Amino acid sequence: MRRVWNMSAGPAALPTEVVLEIQREFPDWRGIGAGIMEVSHRGKAFSGVIEAARADLRELLDIPESYAVLFLQGGASLQFAQVPMNLAEGKSADYLITGAWSQKAYGEAARLGKARVARADEPTPFSGTGKSGLARVARADEPFTRLPGIDALQLDPEAAYLHLCGNETIHGVEIDETYIARLADRAASVPLVSDMSSHILSRPMDVRRYGLLYAGAQKNIGIAGLTIVIVRADLLERAAPGIPAILDYRAQAANDSMLNTPPTFAIYVAGLVFKWLKRQGGLDGVEKTNRAKADRLYAAIDESDGFYTNHVDPACRSRMNVPFNLPTPELEGEFVRASEAAGFMGLKGHKSVGGIRASLYNAVPEEGVEALIAFMTDFRQEHAN
Amino acid sequence: MRRVWNMSAGPAALPTEVVLEIQREFPDWRGIGAGIMEVSHRGKAFSGVIEAARADLRELLDIPESYAVLFLQGGASLQFAQVPMNLAEGKSADYLITGAWSQKAYGEAARLGKARVARADEPTPFSGTGKSGLARVARADEPFTRLPGIDALQLDPEAAYLHLCGNETIHGVEIDETYIARLADRAASVPLVSDMSSHILSRPMDVRRYGLLYAGAQKNIGIAGLTIVIVRADLLERAAPGIPAILDYRAQAANDSMLNTPPTFAIYVAGLVFKWLKRQGGLDGVEKTNRAKADRLYAAIDESDGFYTNHVDPACRSRMNVPFNLPTPELEGEFVRASEAAGFMGLKGHKSVGGIRASLYNAVPEEGVEALIAFMTDFRQEHAN
Repeated sequence: MRRVWNMSAGPAALPTEVVLEIQREFPDWRGIGAGIMEVSHRGKAFSGVIEAARADLRELLDIPESYAVLFLQGGASLQFAQVPMNLAEGKSADYLITGAWSQKAYGEAARLGKARVARADEPTPFSGTGKSGLARVARADEPFTRLPGIDALQLDPEAAYLHLCGNETIHGVEIDETYIARLADRAASVPLVSDMSSHILSRPMDVRRYGLLYAGAQKNIGIAGLTIVIVRADLLERAAPGIPAILDYRAQAANDSMLNTPPTFAIYVAGLVFKWLKRQGGLDGVEKTNRAKADRLYAAIDESDGFYTNHVDPACRSRMNVPFNLPTPELEGEFVRASEAAGFMGLKGHKSVGGIRASLYNAVPEEGVEALIAFMTDFRQEHAN
Repeated sequence: MRRVWNMSAGPAALPTEVVLEIQREFPDWRGIGAGIMEVSHRGKAFSGVIEAARADLRELLDIPESYAVLFLQGGASLQFAQVPMNLAEGKSADYLITGAWSQKAYGEAARLGKARVARADEPTPFSGTGKSGLARVARADEPFTRLPGIDALQLDPEAAYLHLCGNETIHGVEIDETYIARLADRAASVPLVSDMSSHILSRPMDVRRYGLLYAGAQKNIGIAGLTIVIVRADLLERAAPGIPAILDYRAQAANDSMLNTPPTFAIYVAGLVFKWLKRQGGLDGVEKTNRAKADRLYAAIDESDGFYTNHVDPACRSRMNVPFNLPTPELEGEFVRASEAAGFMGLKGHKSVGGIRASLYNAVPEEGVEALIAFMTDFRQEHAN
């Protein structure tokens, strides 16, 4: 069995320990005489699996009882529509645009109803902890390298909600807890909604600051085909009357995510990942590792005398997705080829931005990042002139 | 490793051969150094998997080029909404009600727009090949034991489509190719739409008779979390402009079902099941086996001197789901307990109707049905007085 250093952006690596556990019990789950994917979602075996997964997720993220935890399908892209269908109540919603994914979420909401971009007055001093610069709303045609200053944001106090993307997988822009706390204060009674697909469970996060958060599973939770939604109970009452039953959060909450057959195998995988996370010391434990991994990689980039470059403001550099460039696209192509030959996977940047991207999700061990840095050092020595 | 006779209604048994194949290559798919669920949906490895799955499905069902094959999420229940959103164009649609699932599909369409039940004039002679009786539209409060006579059906010639459920998983009512052919003739230019979740791929089916057909994967295709939609290209143009992008068949078709990350592992499993089906001699091959399995079980029921009873008109008895009763609910409970002790799984009937249900999907081998019949014979000898 060969396991490469898998730094894919999603679907992404699972912890090898979990992979082997699944393999072991695949044809006969704990002696029941069938795989867990072959049994009724309403039977004892799977009921135990989904209940444990929900309980472990609640424990890991310290989710208050006043929030429902839903196991749904369709990915974050379905949530781009489902959120306004359930929460907008015909009102306008605010969208903070910090990269390609929040831009996409905004586009879908604007197509379906009323949505506005939460813009920042400019020019105004950048209020983050970054080096310098002016606060601004990053736009689709902009490089998305920093966050808008919170004080300068023009927020609609009557907005149905304020949507953001906690971590921009393509642009490598992550919003930290301090920014979230200040944003929640400014938003006051307007609930925050966050797409956390690519950084959920990577560190402790205060769920209480959000009205709703959602995440596709294929990065930090498990395999593609499962979407987790965590939603404050009072918001469940907002659902528009004419929406499809299966897309109604309230109906799903009332039926424990079993309005129809849920993606049972993907939920089972998520449950094993949650148990694995607990064995890593929970979110405090993985945060420590994730911080070390990201710090080391950014240091290697910043200390490469400009051979490797990352343009994101250090105040909002993502710990999960590290996009970077080499001096030329040709060298980037050569880097990807050489990295694959050296036992790495998934380092090619997203097609919309090119370059290189290393995704350092929970399942990527520190040794993998060390190996990448060693490879980068060698590659630079070979190719820098 | 223990493998019981798994007759669950869904999620249901996979062929053991396929289960072991998945187990073998789970941590390292064909030497790439990662599981297939851990790699990019746009990379070479998974692109090959989805392309092969699509090609094999096209071959198995002889799907014309003029139909798109979509790999979606959300189950048949999402299709209950997605079909009217995409095909209704503000018009009314006709629904043929033959059991709980077509009733549910109708309910959702009626909630979202205009839908009417395609009723039959009554009384009128039953036009099927069954024993006797009057044609009627089965209603939610009725036992759903026969199909309405086609000639007596009141169809709307202006309907957007005529929806039916090819096989009613709960009530064990299946519509055969002869009935479909006559119905398609009567419907004329109104396209047929069929929910085939529980009998797709169980026998040859003429896709050309339908405008659209859909199926959740967790019965005859693979694992829960994948929905297959096969739709005639000209119908793609009907999508309502304001529907979510991810629910728009046309957008999905234009993006080869990759508008966002598809449920990659579930598609991989489906692809292996398609290959397995080809090794069984394709749909002609499995039909022969499925016919033999169902014939033997119905014979055992009918020849039990009334100990076991199935009330469905023989003209429309399902080959996939065989619901039956014992003289008392107490005996039924005892039957389920004893069957589990004897190495069977999933024989308890659906909670809405009670009794027993044996699901004989493709993955259930003839030996399993023989074992069930032997068990039923023993049980009857023990409990009949």
